[in-house]
Amino acid sequence: MIDRYTRQEMGEIWSLENKFQTMLEVEIAVAQSQAQMKIIPEDAAKDIHKKGRFQIQRILDIEKETKHDVIAFVSNVAENVGKNGRYIHFGLTSSDVIDTALSLQVKQAGKVLRAQLKLFEKSLIKQIEKHKTTLCTGRTHGMHAEPTSFGVKLAGFLSELRRNIKRYDAALEDMSIGKLSGAVGTYSTQSPQLEKKVCAKLHLTPETIATQVIPRDRHAQLIHSLAMIGAGLERLAVELRHLQRTELQEVSEGFSKGQKGSSAMPHKKNPISSENITGASRLLRSYAQAAMEDIALWHERDISHSSVERVIFPDAFILCDYIVHRMSGVIDNLVVDKQRMLEVMNISKGQLFSSHVLLALVQKGLSREDAYKMVQRVSHSLNKGESLQEKLMGDKEISKYLTAKELSKIFSGEKHKKSILKLIERVI
Amino acid sequence: MIDRYTRQEMGEIWSLENKFQTMLEVEIAVAQSQAQMKIIPEDAAKDIHKKGRFQIQRILDIEKETKHDVIAFVSNVAENVGKNGRYIHFGLTSSDVIDTALSLQVKQAGKVLRAQLKLFEKSLIKQIEKHKTTLCTGRTHGMHAEPTSFGVKLAGFLSELRRNIKRYDAALEDMSIGKLSGAVGTYSTQSPQLEKKVCAKLHLTPETIATQVIPRDRHAQLIHSLAMIGAGLERLAVELRHLQRTELQEVSEGFSKGQKGSSAMPHKKNPISSENITGASRLLRSYAQAAMEDIALWHERDISHSSVERVIFPDAFILCDYIVHRMSGVIDNLVVDKQRMLEVMNISKGQLFSSHVLLALVQKGLSREDAYKMVQRVSHSLNKGESLQEKLMGDKEISKYLTAKELSKIFSGEKHKKSILKLIERVI
Amino acid sequence: MIDRYTRQEMGEIWSLENKFQTMLEVEIAVAQSQAQMKIIPEDAAKDIHKKGRFQIQRILDIEKETKHDVIAFVSNVAENVGKNGRYIHFGLTSSDVIDTALSLQVKQAGKVLRAQLKLFEKSLIKQIEKHKTTLCTGRTHGMHAEPTSFGVKLAGFLSELRRNIKRYDAALEDMSIGKLSGAVGTYSTQSPQLEKKVCAKLHLTPETIATQVIPRDRHAQLIHSLAMIGAGLERLAVELRHLQRTELQEVSEGFSKGQKGSSAMPHKKNPISSENITGASRLLRSYAQAAMEDIALWHERDISHSSVERVIFPDAFILCDYIVHRMSGVIDNLVVDKQRMLEVMNISKGQLFSSHVLLALVQKGLSREDAYKMVQRVSHSLNKGESLQEKLMGDKEISKYLTAKELSKIFSGEKHKKSILKLIERVI
Amino acid sequence: MIDRYTRQEMGEIWSLENKFQTMLEVEIAVAQSQAQMKIIPEDAAKDIHKKGRFQIQRILDIEKETKHDVIAFVSNVAENVGKNGRYIHFGLTSSDVIDTALSLQVKQAGKVLRAQLKLFEKSLIKQIEKHKTTLCTGRTHGMHAEPTSFGVKLAGFLSELRRNIKRYDAALEDMSIGKLSGAVGTYSTQSPQLEKKVCAKLHLTPETIATQVIPRDRHAQLIHSLAMIGAGLERLAVELRHLQRTELQEVSEGFSKGQKGSSAMPHKKNPISSENITGASRLLRSYAQAAMEDIALWHERDISHSSVERVIFPDAFILCDYIVHRMSGVIDNLVVDKQRMLEVMNISKGQLFSSHVLLALVQKGLSREDAYKMVQRVSHSLNKGESLQEKLMGDKEISKYLTAKELSKIFSGEKHKKSILKLIERVI
Repeated sequence: MIDRYTRQEMGEIWSLENKFQTMLEVEIAVAQSQAQMKIIPEDAAKDIHKKGRFQIQRILDIEKETKHDVIAFVSNVAENVGKNGRYIHFGLTSSDVIDTALSLQVKQAGKVLRAQLKLFEKSLIKQIEKHKTTLCTGRTHGMHAEPTSFGVKLAGFLSELRRNIKRYDAALEDMSIGKLSGAVGTYSTQSPQLEKKVCAKLHLTPETIATQVIPRDRHAQLIHSLAMIGAGLERLAVELRHLQRTELQEVSEGFSKGQKGSSAMPHKKNPISSENITGASRLLRSYAQAAMEDIALWHERDISHSSVERVIFPDAFILCDYIVHRMSGVIDNLVVDKQRMLEVMNISKGQLFSSHVLLALVQKGLSREDAYKMVQRVSHSLNKGESLQEKLMGDKEISKYLTAKELSKIFSGEKHKKSILKLIERVI
Repeated sequence: MIDRYTRQEMGEIWSLENKFQTMLEVEIAVAQSQAQMKIIPEDAAKDIHKKGRFQIQRILDIEKETKHDVIAFVSNVAENVGKNGRYIHFGLTSSDVIDTALSLQVKQAGKVLRAQLKLFEKSLIKQIEKHKTTLCTGRTHGMHAEPTSFGVKLAGFLSELRRNIKRYDAALEDMSIGKLSGAVGTYSTQSPQLEKKVCAKLHLTPETIATQVIPRDRHAQLIHSLAMIGAGLERLAVELRHLQRTELQEVSEGFSKGQKGSSAMPHKKNPISSENITGASRLLRSYAQAAMEDIALWHERDISHSSVERVIFPDAFILCDYIVHRMSGVIDNLVVDKQRMLEVMNISKGQLFSSHVLLALVQKGLSREDAYKMVQRVSHSLNKGESLQEKLMGDKEISKYLTAKELSKIFSGEKHKKSILKLIERVI
Repeated sequence: MIDRYTRQEMGEIWSLENKFQTMLEVEIAVAQSQAQMKIIPEDAAKDIHKKGRFQIQRILDIEKETKHDVIAFVSNVAENVGKNGRYIHFGLTSSDVIDTALSLQVKQAGKVLRAQLKLFEKSLIKQIEKHKTTLCTGRTHGMHAEPTSFGVKLAGFLSELRRNIKRYDAALEDMSIGKLSGAVGTYSTQSPQLEKKVCAKLHLTPETIATQVIPRDRHAQLIHSLAMIGAGLERLAVELRHLQRTELQEVSEGFSKGQKGSSAMPHKKNPISSENITGASRLLRSYAQAAMEDIALWHERDISHSSVERVIFPDAFILCDYIVHRMSGVIDNLVVDKQRMLEVMNISKGQLFSSHVLLALVQKGLSREDAYKMVQRVSHSLNKGESLQEKLMGDKEISKYLTAKELSKIFSGEKHKKSILKLIERVI
Repeated sequence: MIDRYTRQEMGEIWSLENKFQTMLEVEIAVAQSQAQMKIIPEDAAKDIHKKGRFQIQRILDIEKETKHDVIAFVSNVAENVGKNGRYIHFGLTSSDVIDTALSLQVKQAGKVLRAQLKLFEKSLIKQIEKHKTTLCTGRTHGMHAEPTSFGVKLAGFLSELRRNIKRYDAALEDMSIGKLSGAVGTYSTQSPQLEKKVCAKLHLTPETIATQVIPRDRHAQLIHSLAMIGAGLERLAVELRHLQRTELQEVSEGFSKGQKGSSAMPHKKNPISSENITGASRLLRSYAQAAMEDIALWHERDISHSSVERVIFPDAFILCDYIVHRMSGVIDNLVVDKQRMLEVMNISKGQLFSSHVLLALVQKGLSREDAYKMVQRVSHSLNKGESLQEKLMGDKEISKYLTAKELSKIFSGEKHKKSILKLIERVI
């Protein structure tokens, strides 16, 4: 039911067609290597390469009898190859093929997703450049805190994205693993040399010590890295949903001609993409949980991980690909209302600068304690519509320490813009 | 990618076709009720009922423009109805239809799964009856502990199943909820009377206090109940996997003609169904996690739950349906080797009865401490092949307290059979 | 490290002292029942009751040697009882005592938490009564949608709370279970009659079919019910955090004299309680996940659940108790700014009523499609500061269908207040 | 309630005492750097360094009033410092101190845990060296598959451990981050130079772009890395629990003098450490889940992560430290029964070699299909006690292709030993 989120390229990678195709690639690479090593006749390898075909329906039919998908696949290819078909899968156990093929699929999917991630990075950079000094409200606890810029906000997300890409790259590399060490990982029917040769052909690294399978910590780490990407997107999605609130309207997701926000309320323009992404990240997190439970297989392996992986590998990649792409679109088309950002900053009537007043008072010789109490007293006594700057200027106690000019400089925000520019230089 | 696990009936319920069909049912019930209440013309309701049709492709096309699936659906139905189409969805908000329709789908799916659960219950009962007094090894920590019977083992699973069915029933009932209270749940455009009427038609209970949506604690509880069913199946699956081990071979999953256990090792017959079920239960658990995160929607709702639910409702039901059905088959066709069970009991050479020796010694007046040390000493001194009973008989200290006859009675296991029969009567 | 969240009463229940105390209660109840059944001498039961004491340090010392906590406990009590000490724990296995005692602890904790839940219910009811018709903004997607009242909002939370209490009660009852069926649940060394008698004394229900332990689905369901309570609180906490935002300020958590909101920014008053509760609910959710993984123990049980339960039972109850109590305080002391709520409603300049304009147009004979487009057109053309009502009145097309008076009635909100009162009557 | 699992060194790191101590270190480093930069007077920095003390009880008392733990801490230190106390925390926001101090605590804890991990690695290596060629049964699906060695098994765990250490190191480094960028991360009241100076003193890297806090993806990744370590230990624990089963008894956890396995069954020696570790890994997994939910904080941060982190940072580190240490002990004291391993291999009467017979037949010119059927037929026809080797020798069809001598060579296992030695060289 993940269909809705399937983008074509990623969908094709996880199709049954491509699953068998990568398995075939492994079998062919094995046959070719075995021929080179004189384990099977050279013309067998040639036949397997040339005539190696499969028909999905035929595989499914054979599987009904054998209840074993790899055997069904091998039988189907073998019958297509003809007499030399008996040299396919020579000395292999199913997991040699399945796991190595899965690594190939992951490599393909990994590349597609990585390209999306880089596009998303570009989308972020473009907006950051545009909004380096677009001043806006910084909030903690949902409350106005101090000024920041929209560029700084996005720069934080860019920075996190890069960390997640780094984690993802490491996890991807950790899963670029081939494995041909046989039934329990002891090379009882194949030599490590064969594995090495085949892995080189397939651009994979041979597993150090396998059981029947490539140990599942590698897979769990990868799915986790997708969940981390999801969590980063969620944080951004939540930010955008906040900024689009009716009361803020600092940004809004693009709204296309003909689009409708609600079947009941014609005025609505909702941050539905960001909400969609928020939900999807929950799914990614849950897949990571299931992947972790797959690690402790019994002995040289049981097959309980299989029913999990059939679902989560396609679904996690498809979903992650979908939301990275969708978020890129959101960022590209984001409507940023600079004027509104300034208005919103003013909603708190200067309170965004209270920490600077505090500091200025301490620099004038007041104890931190006393200065804090003084500024808190004035801040909390503000009546509707009153501005902190004016109230401070009018305060007898405060004005003993700070002149109107000094206060004015504090409230201008100039100091912020300068530090912001330097900050953003760190990432672009 | 859950397709592999989709059984037809359950799959159809979660098809796009049926999703729109249940939405149409809701719209028709609304129109009919509104006509009765003189809110819309009677012939409008008739037209909507008679001519209300949808074409999936057409809906998807409209959605491309409106980016709103319910509006697309309503527009398509309306154009099919013709002039009176404008009375469809009258005064409703999308969530009124979506949530009420989801409740209908869940009811349908709930019924199908419940039938499977009852069939599975029957499978268990049948095997319990057959194996009430089939003595076998009870184990704690994976170690031989005391005798039990295979019937008792299964009776425990039956008992857990019934608790899970009870939880599932409660959760299902908690989700048999209709909701027509409008954009923020205040009946601003419809009356509670309409909701009541429509819910009665659809055999649903009106929501007590809704937001825009039916609160998601109901949905989370339902998905959790599926995860609990999964966890119960997992426990059984793990038990069967243990009992099928080469060293035990007390039971085995049926193995059909033509089936192959391994592509490399022709001798293998593996508990693949139980392993498959074990993995699936991890997925169900993970869906429950995501469903819980859907509860805290913003204000009167955001739509972040939607991307989650599109995936987990179909997938969790389909998967749960699949594994309950598959486990029924495993239990029906389970090969139980009674003779082997007795042999396995004897592997620990009488140690299964050590606790009874302890008790007998205490009854003879020894302190618990001393008796324990005595029996532990003999048990831990057993050499390969020695039986506890004989070693105890030959022990100078022990024989001061227990005669050979008394020991013989302890090791006969008769006491166990009797209590076992009574125990099983509790559940069948 | 949960200490910070420990309220005294709940903390004492989960102390080591009380753990051993409940274990002692079980042992005493067993001895008394066994005496009544003539299994052990009457004066043994009396001695165990009268002299049965434990010293925690002594238990820990013995455990160092035996590496078995129950044996250490029993030995310590036995040495305090003296000669008749050998009749303690007669024919029991450790889990008989541990699991039955845990059920007792859960009952105690369950009662304390339930009282908190009922206090919280009262807090909610009080505020609902006060704010039945306190009109405020209903939001979907974080955007203004339609008017609602603060009472209605809270009524939804009350309704959810009651569902969660019902789930909790069911789960608690499902864990009010005693178990004395011995090493593998077959009553090999005790009779079901003894179990029945002891359970009656302890106000517990005997387990239907146990393994060595009470099956862990009961425990998982209970911890899940705490996570659901947490999720409900999280939803409320998120609502309050939203409403307290600087831009809304519709409500605020009470702020005590001397309190400081930020070490840097003296003006800050933050919704820290609601944020604290939000985080805590994540922890509760995670405990539920671990509890679910405890279900599939091996055979008649392994002890892997034990290291989990030592942590999650105390921590989940302590944390849940803490946040329910804290949220009650937040609700009791909540500052609700009615005037501000009206101002906030006006931020969207009448758009809260767009759905009603839509409906009115359809009632005048327009198709839903056309009416929607018309209202959307006007809504989306609003310039800063313009009100929807006035813009609609001035619109040539709209004014063909709706008079100024009709529009005025729509925008008065009177219709909402009436329906709201009825709605709230459903819960108080 | 994690106390039971607290080892002293790790416990002290997470004590309240040490939490404030690391906070003090940060404050002192800040003061010293500010003095160097002429921001505060030199003697202020000296006083803060010399007289900077805290009293936990006093902090808690102040916190009761301020409801702000950092302010309470700063006030207490300030009063101890005297007049120059007002220069403490100059221009900082609480999170500057809390987050930087947490990074320091994590560094300390990280070092302790890493040392444990290296000790555990050594324990593994020692046993691997001892058991390189200790032949034993390789199993897939819990069924005998092919021979392997106990050294190979452990080598796989060693290999996984090293991957987990690598992941952990990367995550640790990613959390060795300091942050002094103020209320919303814009250095409004401090310069990046100060941050750089302070971080250098504390051996931390300055955050690239912070919000008010160090972004929580770093923290989630670290807790995840602990969960991965747990999952690796769980896999090993499950292996050992299997091998210790009564029917296998290939290994057993050491059993100390005076230890008791069960309060009811004196004969029991249970793999309780491995079970304990299995459970603990569930907890670690659940903490990782909660940590991931902490990432999407609101805007420049809300404080919902705090209630989570107060619990999971100490608990996850303490628990992980505990189980790594405990598992080292298990491996050090593991009783490995080589003789028994050979006996167990023989339980399947030669079936461990079926794949080699298959291969040999294919090399003789049979098709894979036919060879498979032939070997499967003989394997599945084995009667109790019959050996595969003999049955194959006696089989008319098989003996057409393979001589008794060839079969004998296949069943000798020599081929396995050789490949195993090479395999193990990869890791030690």
